Amino acid sequence: MMYPISFKKLVEDFKKLPGIGEKTAERMAFSILMLDDDSVTNFSTDIKNVKIKIKKCEICGTLCEDEKCMICMSKDRSSNTICVVEDSKDVFLFEKLGNYQGRYHVLGGLISPIDGIGPEDIAIKKLIERINKEKVEEIIVAVKGTIEGETTALYIKKLLEDTAVKVSRIASGIPVGAEIDYIDSLTLESALRNRKEIE
Amino acid sequence: MMYPISFKKLVEDFKKLPGIGEKTAERMAFSILMLDDDSVTNFSTDIKNVKIKIKKCEICGTLCEDEKCMICMSKDRSSNTICVVEDSKDVFLFEKLGNYQGRYHVLGGLISPIDGIGPEDIAIKKLIERINKEKVEEIIVAVKGTIEGETTALYIKKLLEDTAVKVSRIASGIPVGAEIDYIDSLTLESALRNRKEIE
Repeated sequence: MMYPISFKKLVEDFKKLPGIGEKTAERMAFSILMLDDDSVTNFSTDIKNVKIKIKKCEICGTLCEDEKCMICMSKDRSSNTICVVEDSKDVFLFEKLGNYQGRYHVLGGLISPIDGIGPEDIAIKKLIERINKEKVEEIIVAVKGTIEGETTALYIKKLLEDTAVKVSRIASGIPVGAEIDYIDSLTLESALRNRKEIE
Repeated sequence: MMYPISFKKLVEDFKKLPGIGEKTAERMAFSILMLDDDSVTNFSTDIKNVKIKIKKCEICGTLCEDEKCMICMSKDRSSNTICVVEDSKDVFLFEKLGNYQGRYHVLGGLISPIDGIGPEDIAIKKLIERINKEKVEEIIVAVKGTIEGETTALYIKKLLEDTAVKVSRIASGIPVGAEIDYIDSLTLESALRNRKEIE
């Protein structure tokens, strides 16, 4: 005997989520059965709503429920600095730190010739427009340290070469608290190269 | 800035699933946003449907969409043997093996005095009724090897002491392919005690 159809369908839905295989999807579907009626109804509604309500901020591309996100709307945020990230979720990671007072710009990807993703496929043009319009002094490129990340950072740097805008890159090095023997050699090399004098 | 409300709600929903913490729930909610509209609508409908459509089989307690499950309805299944399991999902585990031809009985729990769960709280009375009604020859108690599992198995054995019904317990021992040095001592002891002569 196989699972009932409605159950099987839900298992297939869960399998579409990242890192969820057959077994985990089954476990999740079973636990949906264990939830009370209200929780299940809410779950069902919330899934539908998130797709309907969540939009991208017109200015920076962050997820929000309005035309513009709270950060772009805020008068307390400095326009001097724009933190450039690959994905919307990165914005929330930096926001959780709670000490960055500038604004953001979501690229929605990284330049990757091998995947056919060029500068025109991500929100770089929009970034340059913002830099011209808002009084931006520094661009912090906060993307991952892969070839694609480096390429994207260098591309943005090059575009702004003849302007007064400072382009910086978040530091790469050993994670705080990590054992050195577990760090890969590329990271270690970068940490050594980017060493800082102790003051 | 925090997540938009509709997003936050979905994260809370995902956190109700087993083993899903804040980070994973966020990752899942993000991936819902990445799914196409149809997939999201189906996901939402399927969650609601599973709770509405899935019932317990009147006879054995297995999950099904009708009054009675396919196994209890089937004429090809032997009534001689009933495999007694703790939970509905165990039925599907045994069914995946594909070679068991008997029927099942879902207890919906195990006897656990410490948690205040007595024999009357699980489907033991119903099991005895089935044994009297159907022509059952053997009960295979296929529950986990914990104190609760053992207690439940012994309780069922005791109830059927004066009948001709054979009560057996699935074997406990070392998992196939496992390294002996990683097996806990209770399991090893049980494997030794339950050794089988090589024929």
